[in-house]
Amino acid sequence: MTNNSKPYVIGIDMGGTNTVFGVVDARGVVLASGSIKTRKHAKIEDYINELYEETMKLVHGLDAEDKIYGIGVGAPNANYFTGMIEDGVNLPWPTPVPFAQMLSDRFGIPVAITNDANAAAIGEMTYGAARGLKDFIMITLGTGVGSGIVINGQLVYGHDGFAGELGHVIVKRNNGRLCGCGRTGCLETYCSATGVARTAREFLEMSDQPSALRSIPIEDITSKDVYDAAMAGDEIAKKVFDYTGKVLGEALADFTVFSAPEAFVLFGGLAKAGNLLLEPMRESMEKNMLSIWKGKVKILLSELKEADAAVLGASALGWEAKPLSHE
Amino acid sequence: MTNNSKPYVIGIDMGGTNTVFGVVDARGVVLASGSIKTRKHAKIEDYINELYEETMKLVHGLDAEDKIYGIGVGAPNANYFTGMIEDGVNLPWPTPVPFAQMLSDRFGIPVAITNDANAAAIGEMTYGAARGLKDFIMITLGTGVGSGIVINGQLVYGHDGFAGELGHVIVKRNNGRLCGCGRTGCLETYCSATGVARTAREFLEMSDQPSALRSIPIEDITSKDVYDAAMAGDEIAKKVFDYTGKVLGEALADFTVFSAPEAFVLFGGLAKAGNLLLEPMRESMEKNMLSIWKGKVKILLSELKEADAAVLGASALGWEAKPLSHE
Repeated sequence: MTNNSKPYVIGIDMGGTNTVFGVVDARGVVLASGSIKTRKHAKIEDYINELYEETMKLVHGLDAEDKIYGIGVGAPNANYFTGMIEDGVNLPWPTPVPFAQMLSDRFGIPVAITNDANAAAIGEMTYGAARGLKDFIMITLGTGVGSGIVINGQLVYGHDGFAGELGHVIVKRNNGRLCGCGRTGCLETYCSATGVARTAREFLEMSDQPSALRSIPIEDITSKDVYDAAMAGDEIAKKVFDYTGKVLGEALADFTVFSAPEAFVLFGGLAKAGNLLLEPMRESMEKNMLSIWKGKVKILLSELKEADAAVLGASALGWEAKPLSHE
Repeated sequence: MTNNSKPYVIGIDMGGTNTVFGVVDARGVVLASGSIKTRKHAKIEDYINELYEETMKLVHGLDAEDKIYGIGVGAPNANYFTGMIEDGVNLPWPTPVPFAQMLSDRFGIPVAITNDANAAAIGEMTYGAARGLKDFIMITLGTGVGSGIVINGQLVYGHDGFAGELGHVIVKRNNGRLCGCGRTGCLETYCSATGVARTAREFLEMSDQPSALRSIPIEDITSKDVYDAAMAGDEIAKKVFDYTGKVLGEALADFTVFSAPEAFVLFGGLAKAGNLLLEPMRESMEKNMLSIWKGKVKILLSELKEADAAVLGASALGWEAKPLSHE
């Protein structure tokens, strides 16, 4: 994987607000990092120029101009096969855009790109909780639900580069919640941070049970509010996590019949709810599991430091970057 | 894949009743075939002896003693990794049993085994409708629902060798039908031949609508009866296929988010219902598909002759057989 004469990779995580980047070594140490605003420039060329200049400041500071093996990028709707960002809903420039090619041209270094959940899976396999695992599924529980599926040591990109959208498995066929994708009943409408807040609103409206959450205007309730209330013993808030864990556990049992993973690796804000979420989730997963897998599939929590995780995940892809062919 | 000096493989398909076997060339021509009764012998050694003797008659007839590259076996609950038949519910001898090893010892030829749906997927990829496809999902619609998942040209075995049990994805969370696996709501309780018969019984009991099916004792209704009635224009029978197609299409849309296949390949008795099943299935799949895959995932029907399909599928695995290591 690594290369003696080029011992470093650059990881770039493009979010809707910030783009974070860093120089990383083969052991997963972030040697230097920085960030720029993703939406500052109306032209992608200007964004890439600023990204190049700020990243190269780090590289110069490390005296590492000739030591960068490759660049890995995690970005929304990024396609590993084509190197394109296909549909940048939150980005200020037109898409699709040949991002890997443009970045590679600017840096003169091979670039590989994928979406953030896939990058997280590769990061976890390279540096984190999934080291040594050849079959696992990364589930990112953030604003939405993302996933990165690893089978036989390889990330699953599918026919078109977009495989692994497990947040959009339909878990409620009837009267499901409206999802950002335009359909109803998707997993991420229940088991994301926003899903937890939606569940809390529903539960509060369906009963008159006293709850600390009733002191917050109902539309302002966040998953953090629900977590805090649950930790303080609030019954409705605890029920929200029970329900979230139940739905997630059912989904994980279904995912298991597909690829028989050794483990699920959980990452993201909601994963930090700990046993509030994990206990009902495990119970539900085991209850719904096909018998041959009962008690056999591990639940692991990400081992990457949160501040570094996005850059580390993206950087791990840098070890796979190959010079793009100019056809 | 093939080998000039060893141009043939042996395919063995072990069913609960019959074991069918054949000698197959690299183009998928079954040069000779035969069958024995699976349950005739109480001792597995006697079963293997008869299988060896009958198979070798074919080999001698082809003057092919030195021309067999490998043996591929499709068998219930067969594990590709371990070579074991782990749980032979319908077999007369005790399991688990190291079937690949025993067969390899008897024949003196490398043996690879897997379950029948996986063998079907490999057969379709090697000789049939999936030639040239690197990402597809085989769905076998028989007494149950089986599946074989191919990602990046490789069959998905998962961590333990048992991946790809898509018949046991839960499609009805509430009041689902009891499945042979002990849980409720599995896909195969709705979209198999037995599922079609169950749906017909339910629909007949839920209404007084006239139907040709009412002339059959309700417990005796088969999927073939429902097919015949639907082809004759029976409204209830047509509704049964509409419902079956709807449920199957919803499931296929969910499977797509996992591995983004180029195609689903359908095989088995129910697949032969043609547009009675395929039209509502396609409509439901497209309606439920995440937008990036709408109109992009093909539905293919198996191209293997039904009489040969099981042997061909198993035989294709013979090209992958490697000598077992004796540890």
